[in-house]
Amino acid sequence: MSRTLKLTIAYDGTDFAGWQRQATDRTVQATIEDALAPIEGQRAVVFGAGRTDAGVHAAAQVASVTITATIASDALQRALNATLPEDVRILSIEEMPSRFHAQFAATRKTYHYWIWSGGVVLPQLRRFVWHVPQILDSEAMHAAAAFVLGEHDFAAFQAAGGDVRTTVRLITTSDVSVVDLPGHDPEGRGPGFSAAASGTLIRYEIAGSGFLRHMVRTIVGTLVEVGRGRRPADDLGRVLASRDRSQAAATAPPQGLVFWSVEY
Amino acid sequence: MSRTLKLTIAYDGTDFAGWQRQATDRTVQATIEDALAPIEGQRAVVFGAGRTDAGVHAAAQVASVTITATIASDALQRALNATLPEDVRILSIEEMPSRFHAQFAATRKTYHYWIWSGGVVLPQLRRFVWHVPQILDSEAMHAAAAFVLGEHDFAAFQAAGGDVRTTVRLITTSDVSVVDLPGHDPEGRGPGFSAAASGTLIRYEIAGSGFLRHMVRTIVGTLVEVGRGRRPADDLGRVLASRDRSQAAATAPPQGLVFWSVEY
Repeated sequence: MSRTLKLTIAYDGTDFAGWQRQATDRTVQATIEDALAPIEGQRAVVFGAGRTDAGVHAAAQVASVTITATIASDALQRALNATLPEDVRILSIEEMPSRFHAQFAATRKTYHYWIWSGGVVLPQLRRFVWHVPQILDSEAMHAAAAFVLGEHDFAAFQAAGGDVRTTVRLITTSDVSVVDLPGHDPEGRGPGFSAAASGTLIRYEIAGSGFLRHMVRTIVGTLVEVGRGRRPADDLGRVLASRDRSQAAATAPPQGLVFWSVEY
Repeated sequence: MSRTLKLTIAYDGTDFAGWQRQATDRTVQATIEDALAPIEGQRAVVFGAGRTDAGVHAAAQVASVTITATIASDALQRALNATLPEDVRILSIEEMPSRFHAQFAATRKTYHYWIWSGGVVLPQLRRFVWHVPQILDSEAMHAAAAFVLGEHDFAAFQAAGGDVRTTVRLITTSDVSVVDLPGHDPEGRGPGFSAAASGTLIRYEIAGSGFLRHMVRTIVGTLVEVGRGRRPADDLGRVLASRDRSQAAATAPPQGLVFWSVEY
């Protein structure tokens, strides 16, 4: 009798070569499969909702796996967390109908991208932000971000070598905001922040039906050029319409990106 | 012509053997002195306000140094940050009167200690919290924390081998609070948090004229025993009065501790 489980997973992507199992490099999928194998008695494939790239983090990646072991889901969670390295944690495990598949059943995925603009990056946050030394124009970036809302052909924002059937995607949230840094107020909310920090923390939130390879990071790279004053805010519309990757900016680095949530 | 500078410094203490220079281990003081030496032309001693232990972090450590190099303070800050490893950052540099000494001139120091109670620790916060798997009684801890307020002989909370003249210290803030985890609200404030996280983030804040070796961490260890229900809240008063280290609990681990600020 087999069971299908939904795993919600957080990881610090710094020391992983991404989600997907590879021949030699350390990956999140292989790390979890290897922790599960002794419990299941054989290797079971853990399917992730999103195949995050090397260095990208997850706040709540979702994965599905079908196993035959009868261990209770809360005991399984404890057993996995006891075995797994500290940079990946199983946040919850739920029993699902056998047809559940984390990747194919997803209806909406949300990513956050964090930029530290100006100032000095706090050592405690260095693994989780892209430091842009310039003071960025976050209002221009906010205006630019709206141009990707809706259903578009995102070919201009796809990494070379993509082999998907269609490059059309529906984007339902695309928003740039300046986040009050917890350490900036005397409350000092959140460990690892500093009252003496300088610089601005900018968050880009994007949600949609799905994403092409490097799509979020290429949109972010282009938004940052708007924030630097090198492109007008409406340039995002022009780049989209071109469907030409060479019109978009360089891909933003991976460490600012967090796979935030998945809806089913 | 010599000048005295005040450096405000943040560091992730995980990979440091503490502040103070040692013969072989990597320390924050030696790392900064080594970065400064080529600019000054010789080694200058950088005095820290607090000699944090191995694994302890700083949000705004303050240090003083006297140099003869005429480089402007903002250029010096940039030059140091360009050379220093990413786990230590100079947040600011100010010119001070020659009599300024970061350690002896300090009038008040503040430390924060972060505890993750219950649940699963987010990988992104693992270097900055003490995980206590039990759900702690934070109200009992809050009541217990008040017993160390005022001027007391803290001999019971001092590490063995301390060689200070007096173990009397004045504590002006001693407060336990439950912090709303940014990731728990849909805003998702702060990178590295997760909407799917479970557990409670508890912060202990303590400020005073000065601290004995391991004093904050031994108070925290004892507060956590109160939170576990193993000691009554007023036990802190009894331990203090005993002036006997064996009456206090085990020292809490270093990674939850942050040297938050110094006043002059």
